[in-house]
Amino acid sequence: MVVRAAVAGASGYAGGELLRLLLAHPGVEVGALTGNSNAGQRLGALQPHLLPLADRVLEPTTAEVLAGHDVVFLALPHGQSAAVAEQLGDATLVVDMGADFRLKDAGEWEKFYGSPHAGTWPYGLPELPGARDALKGSKRIAVPGCYPTAVSLALVPAYVHGLAENDAVIVAATGTSGAGKALKPHLLGSEVMGSMSPYGVGGGHRHTPEMIQNLSAAAGEKVTVSFTPTLAPMARGILATCNVKAKPGVSAESVRAAYEKAYADEPFVHVLPEGQWPATASVYGSNAVQIQVAYDESAQRIVVISAIDNLTKGTAGGAVQSMNIALGLDETTGLSTIGVAP
Amino acid sequence: MVVRAAVAGASGYAGGELLRLLLAHPGVEVGALTGNSNAGQRLGALQPHLLPLADRVLEPTTAEVLAGHDVVFLALPHGQSAAVAEQLGDATLVVDMGADFRLKDAGEWEKFYGSPHAGTWPYGLPELPGARDALKGSKRIAVPGCYPTAVSLALVPAYVHGLAENDAVIVAATGTSGAGKALKPHLLGSEVMGSMSPYGVGGGHRHTPEMIQNLSAAAGEKVTVSFTPTLAPMARGILATCNVKAKPGVSAESVRAAYEKAYADEPFVHVLPEGQWPATASVYGSNAVQIQVAYDESAQRIVVISAIDNLTKGTAGGAVQSMNIALGLDETTGLSTIGVAP
Amino acid sequence: MVVRAAVAGASGYAGGELLRLLLAHPGVEVGALTGNSNAGQRLGALQPHLLPLADRVLEPTTAEVLAGHDVVFLALPHGQSAAVAEQLGDATLVVDMGADFRLKDAGEWEKFYGSPHAGTWPYGLPELPGARDALKGSKRIAVPGCYPTAVSLALVPAYVHGLAENDAVIVAATGTSGAGKALKPHLLGSEVMGSMSPYGVGGGHRHTPEMIQNLSAAAGEKVTVSFTPTLAPMARGILATCNVKAKPGVSAESVRAAYEKAYADEPFVHVLPEGQWPATASVYGSNAVQIQVAYDESAQRIVVISAIDNLTKGTAGGAVQSMNIALGLDETTGLSTIGVAP
Amino acid sequence: MVVRAAVAGASGYAGGELLRLLLAHPGVEVGALTGNSNAGQRLGALQPHLLPLADRVLEPTTAEVLAGHDVVFLALPHGQSAAVAEQLGDATLVVDMGADFRLKDAGEWEKFYGSPHAGTWPYGLPELPGARDALKGSKRIAVPGCYPTAVSLALVPAYVHGLAENDAVIVAATGTSGAGKALKPHLLGSEVMGSMSPYGVGGGHRHTPEMIQNLSAAAGEKVTVSFTPTLAPMARGILATCNVKAKPGVSAESVRAAYEKAYADEPFVHVLPEGQWPATASVYGSNAVQIQVAYDESAQRIVVISAIDNLTKGTAGGAVQSMNIALGLDETTGLSTIGVAP
Repeated sequence: MVVRAAVAGASGYAGGELLRLLLAHPGVEVGALTGNSNAGQRLGALQPHLLPLADRVLEPTTAEVLAGHDVVFLALPHGQSAAVAEQLGDATLVVDMGADFRLKDAGEWEKFYGSPHAGTWPYGLPELPGARDALKGSKRIAVPGCYPTAVSLALVPAYVHGLAENDAVIVAATGTSGAGKALKPHLLGSEVMGSMSPYGVGGGHRHTPEMIQNLSAAAGEKVTVSFTPTLAPMARGILATCNVKAKPGVSAESVRAAYEKAYADEPFVHVLPEGQWPATASVYGSNAVQIQVAYDESAQRIVVISAIDNLTKGTAGGAVQSMNIALGLDETTGLSTIGVAP
Repeated sequence: MVVRAAVAGASGYAGGELLRLLLAHPGVEVGALTGNSNAGQRLGALQPHLLPLADRVLEPTTAEVLAGHDVVFLALPHGQSAAVAEQLGDATLVVDMGADFRLKDAGEWEKFYGSPHAGTWPYGLPELPGARDALKGSKRIAVPGCYPTAVSLALVPAYVHGLAENDAVIVAATGTSGAGKALKPHLLGSEVMGSMSPYGVGGGHRHTPEMIQNLSAAAGEKVTVSFTPTLAPMARGILATCNVKAKPGVSAESVRAAYEKAYADEPFVHVLPEGQWPATASVYGSNAVQIQVAYDESAQRIVVISAIDNLTKGTAGGAVQSMNIALGLDETTGLSTIGVAP
Repeated sequence: MVVRAAVAGASGYAGGELLRLLLAHPGVEVGALTGNSNAGQRLGALQPHLLPLADRVLEPTTAEVLAGHDVVFLALPHGQSAAVAEQLGDATLVVDMGADFRLKDAGEWEKFYGSPHAGTWPYGLPELPGARDALKGSKRIAVPGCYPTAVSLALVPAYVHGLAENDAVIVAATGTSGAGKALKPHLLGSEVMGSMSPYGVGGGHRHTPEMIQNLSAAAGEKVTVSFTPTLAPMARGILATCNVKAKPGVSAESVRAAYEKAYADEPFVHVLPEGQWPATASVYGSNAVQIQVAYDESAQRIVVISAIDNLTKGTAGGAVQSMNIALGLDETTGLSTIGVAP
Repeated sequence: MVVRAAVAGASGYAGGELLRLLLAHPGVEVGALTGNSNAGQRLGALQPHLLPLADRVLEPTTAEVLAGHDVVFLALPHGQSAAVAEQLGDATLVVDMGADFRLKDAGEWEKFYGSPHAGTWPYGLPELPGARDALKGSKRIAVPGCYPTAVSLALVPAYVHGLAENDAVIVAATGTSGAGKALKPHLLGSEVMGSMSPYGVGGGHRHTPEMIQNLSAAAGEKVTVSFTPTLAPMARGILATCNVKAKPGVSAESVRAAYEKAYADEPFVHVLPEGQWPATASVYGSNAVQIQVAYDESAQRIVVISAIDNLTKGTAGGAVQSMNIALGLDETTGLSTIGVAP
């Protein structure tokens, strides 16, 4: 069986990465590609690395263009997915790579995104407790944010196993592709190269409520999160440093054992051997997640560090993984755990 | 049919890239992995991006370890391949990723490499005239150097079609992985980031005689080459700027026509549409070659620019492509023309 | 008055940066330059950016060579400064850019450095309470570590003003020059570019007790610190993200007011206007410190972020600033608050 | 004597670098700062590295604002300088950092810039034969382009000394700041990092006629130039590789001797010792020029490589150096030959 997939928003970084993966997926045929401001342009001019699609021309993002596909991926600005999805009907698998259907709490959605809440779809982070079951056979998938992917995979085991106190402190570094292709002065190469800088400090980043939702579900209580994202001089990758107070009785051994057990059967999440630390280069272009844990005895804190590729596991790879589950395919089809390094 | 392949020199950058490609190759099973100073170590500690092989342990590079494989890839320091190949016998396909069997002229070999000439094997740049035929069924392959790959693909059509005068001027920028994993001060990140610098200026780079060999074969006369390599602040990629005086009567149109015709049927070499220029990022991790030509009317010179990934098409991808031909497989098996970008 | 200064360890990154600053210092004349493994070499081959000193030759690091200078800077591996300082006598101003005389607690020293404690010298972070007075006229200066500089300047006001609970969580990104010129595989450009990775996680980094010493002095009680350093793909710069629970009653306004007051008269520390965030590029090559504060109301946490150049304010600039004070010069002589950007 | 200097176009990279240098210049006081789209904004928001000027507010670029200064620097889009200069009168020293007054040939100007020729001012590359005399006491200065600075310093001695045939081939790599702060997709950090790409290939770059003008003056005949610029993943720096056929009788020794003699008394141009190659990192933020020569005996070609900082010696430093000469100051005042490295 080969499914036919359309991609709305094919000119951006998320759309481009998705196409890179779909072209390598044996069960998918790439159908319509749409853009808005770029409709009418050759994909070769916009995504010069996607040579097999260089002569494809972007169509406008309309329901007519997207109709007639088995799967439609939406890589649209937030607030636009609901209208498109409605027109596509229930027989089409719609995978939203934007934020619209991630949050359950309408109030949090409105506070952080400033628009009406569109609803909640099955959440495309299969490694979370219960997530795979919700994805199986689903016709709607909300792909997680890149930071929540890195952070939830790092901290959920600590909360599920009762190792961590509430009150998580998270600092993450992202490559610039996480900010998309928008033409903003601070994203110019001249500004970015050789520089680290924070943004959205103090609780303002939109991915914060999504992290809180995932960690709270794992903990069984509302978890407080203080999240600081930083922009690093690299194109891809997220390195998330997650720091939580340990509950009494926790030891380095019990932390390691919990994580090794949590991810023993996961195809994409690798708890590294002791002494080896995650590096974003190691997961470059791959769907793999590298995780390492440390117990800071002096501070009685657990430090969990995860590395992902923000565009692959953090966006497009996560989308394909969840699509595989929804369609009943092997979850790893078309996805690699091998990074492109050095 | 699945062939079993051993890799000698699995801890370096060329060996690591080869393993990345072999793991994705449907007709290859990865056999023995060897290293010298690193024998006994887990591959996961040396190549942390190759997760599926993390628990494999490097063996010493001996004929015993390498024996019994259908294919043996040698990623060894120059001068070491001949002895190993001899012990492996004629039934094994031996692919030398080093320089030992590239040059036909023993004098040039000795001048540039300072050791006795080991011989010449079929040359693994299938896009060169006659190269595919020599590779078919061969049990020995000499993989080209990374610079000669980029430069020969850029200039051979100009010489084959009689467009260019002798006396080529070439300036190429390479990513640091081209220099390997050797611990040298000028390769430290602190030195490399934010800096461009040349090396081997004035005719001294060992890849120069190999370029001359290829271009001279195309031109039917000895071609003079002045080659300047430069080190760029990036991990991967070669951008080769090749500049030759045009023969009388040459026009922008005739140059373009010659190149489009030369590569019309090549699966990996793409002559870009007018107005679009090669970028190493577009071929990152892929076996594709991007080429663009310009005719500088004022200087009556042809400028050909090519971009490759030095580790993929420039080394390991070229090796796999040639192995495919030698084994009678489809030439593109296991190889991608899609770059990992941005 | 012009003082004559010798630099022991002139071939490393700290020594090179110090020389860059001393050459621009109107009150200093550069005297002897020493190295150990590099003795006998031209400085031009080792520090090609220091053109005015290109023809100077490194001498061996001995008391004879260093004697007869007004100031001697020591940029030596830890454990070597005490013996040299002793031989130089009390009339010479000795500025130790290593760790040997930073820690007051001999037990902590031995635990983290594994060698006998050499003592404690006046601490060269003039912005700390009481530090300037201790430096005035002193003949011995212990230059702080680069991370403790960034972190202490970020958090001391919060503790001095009673804004923060104990239990600080700190994540800092450093440029690769912080790791020095040592030839280690993970410091190669090919490994570093495009990658973020942590190291010394879980309390093991040697700068941790130094941070605790400074923060505890400010708080009036032993402060717990969980510190995670990360290596960023840039040559210079530290971005420190410091996160502490706010004491009851703290507000965004009270935090900002405390920091603006704390640094109102400091020539090098700039609390940025609201809405602007520190960036390491902005302090590249300068002695300036950029600081911004945020109050995360939802998590009731204070987030303080500081950016410094690890080689300038974090090492050599801090050394010159403290030397100025010790010698009775204007503290800012020869130092700039202007970054080299973009 | 302290002159008062205004800067028109203070929000761009050239203007920012100029301010960095002027702030360190003992004979200059910074007066009015203007911008167009940015008028009314704090400089601190636009140039966060210029801390001493953070609270200055940009004024509109008008003759009224710029009047009453001893020196006015124009960092404006091409075609705008003539009108401003005319209004400032002959008593004001006007330094044009744009292209408007560089070319003598009105036809070439119109061909490359597409607007009417404004005239020619004394050319601010003091190292060229006769240039210093023309600058002394001048009230108008045309600052050279960054590429022509690097290329002319590299090749003029070869032509002055009759070492080189006509027909120069030049390939140069530039940092992204050379392209300015314009918001263009290919200048985004995500696109630039990890990538080398050419632009303006085939004779189209606007700096080509300026190079031809300088080299032809040195050669005493019209020199043909084929120039290929490439964009490198770094913020600053130009590495120019210049390749010319040697005239009969030329040797490695005669080339070296000519260059050493040509620049023996130049304060900013350094011909490196044999065996050492220029690196842009070594001149980062400095006004120095590193030059090295090689004689490619096999190809009978001279290869000259120069490294400059495109913003310093290539733009703002060159402007200050020429201003110093015009004002009768020591040529090196306020300028450094020390790079900020690593």
